[in-house]
Amino acid sequence: MSNDYFDPKLKIFSLNSNQALAAEIAEVAGINLGKSSVTHFSDGEIQINIEESIRGCHVYVVQSTGFPVNQNLMELLIMIDALKRASAKTINIVMPYYGYARQDRKARSREPITAKLVANLIEKAGATRMITLDLHAPQIQGFFDIPIDHLNAVRLLSNYFSSHHIDEDLVVVSPDHGGVTRARKMADRLKAPIAIIDKRRPRPNVAEVMNIVGNVEGKVAILIDDIIDTAGTITLAANALIESGATKVYACCSHPVLSGPAIERINNSAIEKLIVTNSLVLPEDKWIDKIEQLSVGPLLGEAIVRVHKNESVSPLFD
Amino acid sequence: MSNDYFDPKLKIFSLNSNQALAAEIAEVAGINLGKSSVTHFSDGEIQINIEESIRGCHVYVVQSTGFPVNQNLMELLIMIDALKRASAKTINIVMPYYGYARQDRKARSREPITAKLVANLIEKAGATRMITLDLHAPQIQGFFDIPIDHLNAVRLLSNYFSSHHIDEDLVVVSPDHGGVTRARKMADRLKAPIAIIDKRRPRPNVAEVMNIVGNVEGKVAILIDDIIDTAGTITLAANALIESGATKVYACCSHPVLSGPAIERINNSAIEKLIVTNSLVLPEDKWIDKIEQLSVGPLLGEAIVRVHKNESVSPLFD
Amino acid sequence: MSNDYFDPKLKIFSLNSNQALAAEIAEVAGINLGKSSVTHFSDGEIQINIEESIRGCHVYVVQSTGFPVNQNLMELLIMIDALKRASAKTINIVMPYYGYARQDRKARSREPITAKLVANLIEKAGATRMITLDLHAPQIQGFFDIPIDHLNAVRLLSNYFSSHHIDEDLVVVSPDHGGVTRARKMADRLKAPIAIIDKRRPRPNVAEVMNIVGNVEGKVAILIDDIIDTAGTITLAANALIESGATKVYACCSHPVLSGPAIERINNSAIEKLIVTNSLVLPEDKWIDKIEQLSVGPLLGEAIVRVHKNESVSPLFD
Amino acid sequence: MSNDYFDPKLKIFSLNSNQALAAEIAEVAGINLGKSSVTHFSDGEIQINIEESIRGCHVYVVQSTGFPVNQNLMELLIMIDALKRASAKTINIVMPYYGYARQDRKARSREPITAKLVANLIEKAGATRMITLDLHAPQIQGFFDIPIDHLNAVRLLSNYFSSHHIDEDLVVVSPDHGGVTRARKMADRLKAPIAIIDKRRPRPNVAEVMNIVGNVEGKVAILIDDIIDTAGTITLAANALIESGATKVYACCSHPVLSGPAIERINNSAIEKLIVTNSLVLPEDKWIDKIEQLSVGPLLGEAIVRVHKNESVSPLFD
Amino acid sequence: MSNDYFDPKLKIFSLNSNQALAAEIAEVAGINLGKSSVTHFSDGEIQINIEESIRGCHVYVVQSTGFPVNQNLMELLIMIDALKRASAKTINIVMPYYGYARQDRKARSREPITAKLVANLIEKAGATRMITLDLHAPQIQGFFDIPIDHLNAVRLLSNYFSSHHIDEDLVVVSPDHGGVTRARKMADRLKAPIAIIDKRRPRPNVAEVMNIVGNVEGKVAILIDDIIDTAGTITLAANALIESGATKVYACCSHPVLSGPAIERINNSAIEKLIVTNSLVLPEDKWIDKIEQLSVGPLLGEAIVRVHKNESVSPLFD
Amino acid sequence: MSNDYFDPKLKIFSLNSNQALAAEIAEVAGINLGKSSVTHFSDGEIQINIEESIRGCHVYVVQSTGFPVNQNLMELLIMIDALKRASAKTINIVMPYYGYARQDRKARSREPITAKLVANLIEKAGATRMITLDLHAPQIQGFFDIPIDHLNAVRLLSNYFSSHHIDEDLVVVSPDHGGVTRARKMADRLKAPIAIIDKRRPRPNVAEVMNIVGNVEGKVAILIDDIIDTAGTITLAANALIESGATKVYACCSHPVLSGPAIERINNSAIEKLIVTNSLVLPEDKWIDKIEQLSVGPLLGEAIVRVHKNESVSPLFD
Repeated sequence: MSNDYFDPKLKIFSLNSNQALAAEIAEVAGINLGKSSVTHFSDGEIQINIEESIRGCHVYVVQSTGFPVNQNLMELLIMIDALKRASAKTINIVMPYYGYARQDRKARSREPITAKLVANLIEKAGATRMITLDLHAPQIQGFFDIPIDHLNAVRLLSNYFSSHHIDEDLVVVSPDHGGVTRARKMADRLKAPIAIIDKRRPRPNVAEVMNIVGNVEGKVAILIDDIIDTAGTITLAANALIESGATKVYACCSHPVLSGPAIERINNSAIEKLIVTNSLVLPEDKWIDKIEQLSVGPLLGEAIVRVHKNESVSPLFD
Repeated sequence: MSNDYFDPKLKIFSLNSNQALAAEIAEVAGINLGKSSVTHFSDGEIQINIEESIRGCHVYVVQSTGFPVNQNLMELLIMIDALKRASAKTINIVMPYYGYARQDRKARSREPITAKLVANLIEKAGATRMITLDLHAPQIQGFFDIPIDHLNAVRLLSNYFSSHHIDEDLVVVSPDHGGVTRARKMADRLKAPIAIIDKRRPRPNVAEVMNIVGNVEGKVAILIDDIIDTAGTITLAANALIESGATKVYACCSHPVLSGPAIERINNSAIEKLIVTNSLVLPEDKWIDKIEQLSVGPLLGEAIVRVHKNESVSPLFD
Repeated sequence: MSNDYFDPKLKIFSLNSNQALAAEIAEVAGINLGKSSVTHFSDGEIQINIEESIRGCHVYVVQSTGFPVNQNLMELLIMIDALKRASAKTINIVMPYYGYARQDRKARSREPITAKLVANLIEKAGATRMITLDLHAPQIQGFFDIPIDHLNAVRLLSNYFSSHHIDEDLVVVSPDHGGVTRARKMADRLKAPIAIIDKRRPRPNVAEVMNIVGNVEGKVAILIDDIIDTAGTITLAANALIESGATKVYACCSHPVLSGPAIERINNSAIEKLIVTNSLVLPEDKWIDKIEQLSVGPLLGEAIVRVHKNESVSPLFD
Repeated sequence: MSNDYFDPKLKIFSLNSNQALAAEIAEVAGINLGKSSVTHFSDGEIQINIEESIRGCHVYVVQSTGFPVNQNLMELLIMIDALKRASAKTINIVMPYYGYARQDRKARSREPITAKLVANLIEKAGATRMITLDLHAPQIQGFFDIPIDHLNAVRLLSNYFSSHHIDEDLVVVSPDHGGVTRARKMADRLKAPIAIIDKRRPRPNVAEVMNIVGNVEGKVAILIDDIIDTAGTITLAANALIESGATKVYACCSHPVLSGPAIERINNSAIEKLIVTNSLVLPEDKWIDKIEQLSVGPLLGEAIVRVHKNESVSPLFD
Repeated sequence: MSNDYFDPKLKIFSLNSNQALAAEIAEVAGINLGKSSVTHFSDGEIQINIEESIRGCHVYVVQSTGFPVNQNLMELLIMIDALKRASAKTINIVMPYYGYARQDRKARSREPITAKLVANLIEKAGATRMITLDLHAPQIQGFFDIPIDHLNAVRLLSNYFSSHHIDEDLVVVSPDHGGVTRARKMADRLKAPIAIIDKRRPRPNVAEVMNIVGNVEGKVAILIDDIIDTAGTITLAANALIESGATKVYACCSHPVLSGPAIERINNSAIEKLIVTNSLVLPEDKWIDKIEQLSVGPLLGEAIVRVHKNESVSPLFD
Repeated sequence: MSNDYFDPKLKIFSLNSNQALAAEIAEVAGINLGKSSVTHFSDGEIQINIEESIRGCHVYVVQSTGFPVNQNLMELLIMIDALKRASAKTINIVMPYYGYARQDRKARSREPITAKLVANLIEKAGATRMITLDLHAPQIQGFFDIPIDHLNAVRLLSNYFSSHHIDEDLVVVSPDHGGVTRARKMADRLKAPIAIIDKRRPRPNVAEVMNIVGNVEGKVAILIDDIIDTAGTITLAANALIESGATKVYACCSHPVLSGPAIERINNSAIEKLIVTNSLVLPEDKWIDKIEQLSVGPLLGEAIVRVHKNESVSPLFD
């Protein structure tokens, strides 16, 4: 993005979840981040002050709702309320990681659909547009009635493998039944076949087994998922792939939640390398050699500029 | 369902899409269908008259939005408007087949999300609850803010196979990447492994091939899908399974849309038998020997009674 | 309208109901129709693709909801949803004929008010303005909370008669009790008296008679209605006028629905000539010598340009 | 109505516009009016106190929005707010006269549609049902999305004439172009023909003339309107009827607004007798011999009881 | 405000409550008032006509909802409806005095919260922004979800005293328990201490006494309130202050409602001078020597210009 | 409350903020707490399961939004969503402490009004009623359009002092300008005079002083506030009262937030005893001798029973 583009009506603000990424996005867009302060009081309440006039401006707020998800979400909702009351012309949420996305349907009786609740809260607070990345289910777009620009990191992740010459005898593997479409998309880019980890419990009260559907023998396996959280499934999958004759196992995902035992599991697993994006910040204690982080800053920054200039964002998908 | 249950405040109305199923549902619930007339004028407009008082009643309206989908949907919306203005206490939509469900996300730029639009229209018209069956994506539940009871036909379809002694050397096959979870659910009931049809285009301008991921050789394959529309994918899949050594191929689905060339394709395919439900009416010209239709009437009827009596519907899922 | 006006932010799209009129409107506005495709699948579902970017644009969608009304209405609602999600700045519906307008009140118990339902659906889908023509009841404007520009064809229809020298010894006749105000408006332009067809049933189980209130003897009668549907009333009225001494009978209306037996009835009636607008397409099998179709394209095109340039549309009413 | 019906959950409250009618309604329903006070402070603000618990009750509020219309409307809206916050189960508005009903469409550019605004305000405040009488246009029903029960006084007014032996050689006359349907309805009951006053201005800058369409010579004319406000049109119409040979002229209407010079005009006119309902209170200075007031109390009271008992109100229309 | 600023898209309209102030505001903004007419019919209904095109304009409507409050509020709501339907781009309400503001909470069971109701009505009618002055409680800002610019007259009122050399030995007095924060704000500007009138009833059935908390002896007391209505409290307070040794008593308020016995009470009280703003018009019969009226025209006019130019309004608060 | 009242349709659920109080409330209501589980995952997301059917029930959810406020608020919103989708008949929130209540207005430019945002979120999620206690500002009731029952603890706190014979030579003191009304209410119960702490900064860059308005010399002072958070103001006030001659200082509040340095400050202050309620849990490390906690369980429990039985709650205020 050439940074000779400048419009005083375009403002980008960062909240607390991912300030480095926000800074990078602003740089791509050729402007400085807007001035605001977010105070967390000792009783846990959040106070937000926007420290420059945004009357009549098109405001973009960068916030991922990763850990601590409830606090980050409330920061966002309060910021939207402040912007609305301060007469922003449009309020555009840039949410690289959409928390609670996995609660996207009633799987059992009397469950909430929290991903829809979150959409309702964001719309009710006053947001007028969402820009987001690799939603856990693409149907979450339909949880909103405001426009959504839904970007994806498949190209970014695929390019990592091709540019690192990991491009022969590949098989792209979905770690579960729901991720086969995603695996197929990456496989198309890498011209590879696919396989599926078919986790199942043979009989009640017997341990689950990681059966593999498809052929992985003698191949380099690339596991792809949207979110890696506690890394249980992905690391068991990696080990099962090796046992089934895969020569090497890489893993990749858009959203490195990596909570709880995740880092330890990855370190102890057969995974050669885990490629992730910076949709979520990795705190320093999670910086391990096996993890490589790619930036979605250029993608998001260019999306903002295109949206602001009323240009199509579809070229960003090719 | 014992039919000694009776509450004058419970009313079930049928619109035009599926009157036989509605009658069966009412019988299960132990009541007569409510009296109403739906007139289609020569200019295409629909006029609805409700011919008995429903003031203060809990009304259930049975309507699938299959072919002709737009007309069936408008019948439903007009009926809801009439019920609302006639002071129904609650307006419960029983929609065995949810039309437009496949348009559930923006797959390309500038596409609508028609499945969400339909949800918005139904809520805006005044519905207060939905009872539906095997939504194309379970996330469509989250398109609604009114309560949904989402039933499924997996047990019904699985029972067909076990009761017909089609229960040895099985493999359950998903005809596409998005249906693997559904295949796994049926496979669990039938204690079978799974396989996936991995339709892909090897190179641009080359025909798609039906690659099979997983082992089907020497097995009886059961293809499962939620909707079979023009039957292109499912019949190509069946043939590919035979070519890959499957000994026999059955297919099943919840919603037999079966439009355009579907019947001809099925007749000419390797499919031994196609098991479907009556969520959609099969017109007489689609009655072929290969198709077996199972009734969801008992399931839906019992769901209505449980909802009306404020009992849990979760037992219907086991 | 001079066509030297041009603004890249103004887009006009046509759906399927009335493409010739849409093309004429676009020409009046001095621009090309926007590119989009509407696909009707074999199962009846509609898919819409907008094939050029409309981000930030003021979009006008031309669609009459005549036959097939439910399909045309759903085309419109789906298009609105697509435009909203594709970030159109405003979504302006140009609906020359508003289907279901005659269901504008509860005439009997437990009837819907479908004309209001349609208004609710259009607003809910996301439309921001309506431009329409000769609503069956002007109160339908109040069914909307978005701005409406309500045009009328009285001048266009009146001019036909004066320019064809049908201007002496006239009487303008309302074919029913509800249309007297409309007849009076045309009579004012043509400086003529009025009469009313007072259709009534003298006693139960006796045929209705077409009584005439007012004097038509020796006069040229012009029947005026907003909609002519099956043409039963208007043709009986024409015959009754001749029987009462009218020397000739013309008829005119804004919206030629002309469904069912309409063409045959008109051909067999005393009507000399029926003057209509092109708010609805006349399919070829309805092209008969007695019918003359006038274009509302210039009126609607100029209205769009005035709305887009924030000029008053009131001069179009004089 | 037998007054042995009693349900502690049914409450009827009166505001200030029409307390005698409210008392009559409550008597018909067999209960006492609820206790509340409405204070008008010296600065014009209204304070309302509901002086008995209405938690969980079905509350009916009787208020006509006649003179002073803005004050009566605000009384109503404030009462609705108070009832909503005090946890009424349903809030049913009984509005015998709907003020601002004549502003039901944009007749000229930049006019409001105040009748719709009023509907929006009432719904927004929290009303859950409307019971009203002879709306100026029946389409106003569609301004609401809550249920409306729309009663009419045609039977009551017609019965006056038949029971007073005014039943021979009648003609029912609409005083303007918009009221012909209403005149026809009464004429059907009285088995009479109709005529229309065709008020028009022959040329610019020339006085309007009251032309009569239809035959009135030698007949007893009954003018019928929904609202008589300043009585200009109706009294000129009466005189014109006499001049055209009518032997006597009666007038009737549902809503006696009778503002400004109305009483004087009626007294000086050819009108023999004006029959009205008590949808609006006639203050003592408007009690003249020519005016006869019939009560809609039994009609409204019975409607409330039927609605409350979930019985059909349609028998009240016959 | 320099009047060389001019934008044809900025329109200011006045309704009937305060035309002199509106004219002053327009002059400050450097434009003429928009042309409109408000007719009050003899039956009390209001008709509004906007007599110039406002399509696409940013419209500011000046209206205080003082006496007659219900009529003024309805004028405003009808005007908003008319502007919305006439396609105004934004509808900004300039309400110097917000009527019903004192009904801002449920103080007793079953009371309405009329100040919230009014906010709901204004938003529902279609307003997109409020500019107001010294709300009775600042929390009323939160009754709205549209942006509010809340101005205050403390600087204006304080300046009166300092510019008139009433600046020594002052004490600023709150006439009741709820106004202490307001008194403290003025005291800060005037560098004075505060005192509070502690009106209380010592025992049941005993007259209230005006106890004074704080020291007023030998001081010039300035009573400050937001609204003075019947002037009972403020005049009793003034007398009590004198009795307690105050040497002189001034009073001031933003909103001179001055209803009922107010003028007589003020004339008969110990109040030396009452300083008010022109947020409300003082009718001629209330022009007494003791009252001095300061204009908020420059403040409101400048606020409009700043809002319209998307400049911060915060400098107006210093 | 006698516990012989029992209705299977009444359910009380507790979330995590205040389980002991919830248990006490349920006991007062004579029922067991409903079964549900709230899981906090390692990535911070909350999952809620309702483990008994609540179809058609009136559900009361007890949750204070104290520390950690954002997590507690999200627990509540997710629970509401789950209850709504599980077909609860009504969803009643019992919120003894309403977090973010102090952000109830824009005090400076571009601030949010978070207390209103919270109200919007709760309503949008689907709550149908609020029961709460001593809102920071009573106007927050107007932030809701659903019914609120607003209880207060003044009687409970006052009774503590009278029952402990702290009832002579009292003065009730407001620690700031905004709390004088609250102080007056308690003073009325204790038949005492009031005083106000007038904290102000004499000149810029000079420390604030705690000036006292009113007479406290020789008296036992009772400081009353709604919320004590970091306890800075209240402890400085206590010390200032002693310096001004008060013989002893008690403090009391409804909501013991007591964050950050609060406990240390209280321990080191002149406060003899701090009386609080259990609207918020005091963690063990805050149990100090100076603090006495009174239970609002009986008050809230009885309120639930009265609401559920449609009885007036006003007797609870006396």
